[in-house]
Amino acid sequence: MLDPEQTVLAFVDAWNRMDFDHVHALMAEDIFYHNMPYAPMIGRAAARAFLDSWSVEAVEWTILNIATNGTVVLTERIDRFLRSEGELSIPVMGAFEVENGLITRWRDYFDPGASKKYTPRAEGGGWSRR
Amino acid sequence: MLDPEQTVLAFVDAWNRMDFDHVHALMAEDIFYHNMPYAPMIGRAAARAFLDSWSVEAVEWTILNIATNGTVVLTERIDRFLRSEGELSIPVMGAFEVENGLITRWRDYFDPGASKKYTPRAEGGGWSRR
Repeated sequence: MLDPEQTVLAFVDAWNRMDFDHVHALMAEDIFYHNMPYAPMIGRAAARAFLDSWSVEAVEWTILNIATNGTVVLTERIDRFLRSEGELSIPVMGAFEVENGLITRWRDYFDPGASKKYTPRAEGGGWSRR
Repeated sequence: MLDPEQTVLAFVDAWNRMDFDHVHALMAEDIFYHNMPYAPMIGRAAARAFLDSWSVEAVEWTILNIATNGTVVLTERIDRFLRSEGELSIPVMGAFEVENGLITRWRDYFDPGASKKYTPRAEGGGWSRR
């Protein structure tokens, strides 16, 4: 079984591979998922419905810093997404609580304005994992 | 000399005591201070001018989670402030980089909308450190 930090690293890796089945397999059935500027969601099905509604062509999350304290894993990241509207680059910090290799709580903190600031897509543009 | 996590705990404690001289003494002279939704500031004097301009009657920061990885300390907090406009309660995550007992880099991630959502002041209201 993965330890809490390994679980979060696997979660980020699954995002970067756009392996969304694996993304959701790493969430506990009753996950509490809170994009802090918005209302929280409860349950893997609700998280999946929300994330599926947010279509992406490419994903690149970069972990700037990660630190773990027991079952709590704190991350500082830049989450990049390529969408039909253009490219997004969102500075974010996320707190994950992990039990038995599954994420039970996930809270992301960011400026919601950053998730609306599209820049034109640059062909090639560093999407190593497109 | 305080280690990185002790330095951040002392910093939060200084905020809660409203000992702003000590708050600023824990910053490196050339601190890079970035409230992520806004432009970054460089230098203790710039940070102090910014923070002094933001008047508060009471402060209560609560650390929900803290985790340290070498010189990097990541925090998840609720920062409460009592101001003339009312009370603010801001969910925030902050990344601190610490060298020789001084904060060299400080990045706070939050929804800037939360710093404008005042609620009426409740007399007494849990301001233990007023």
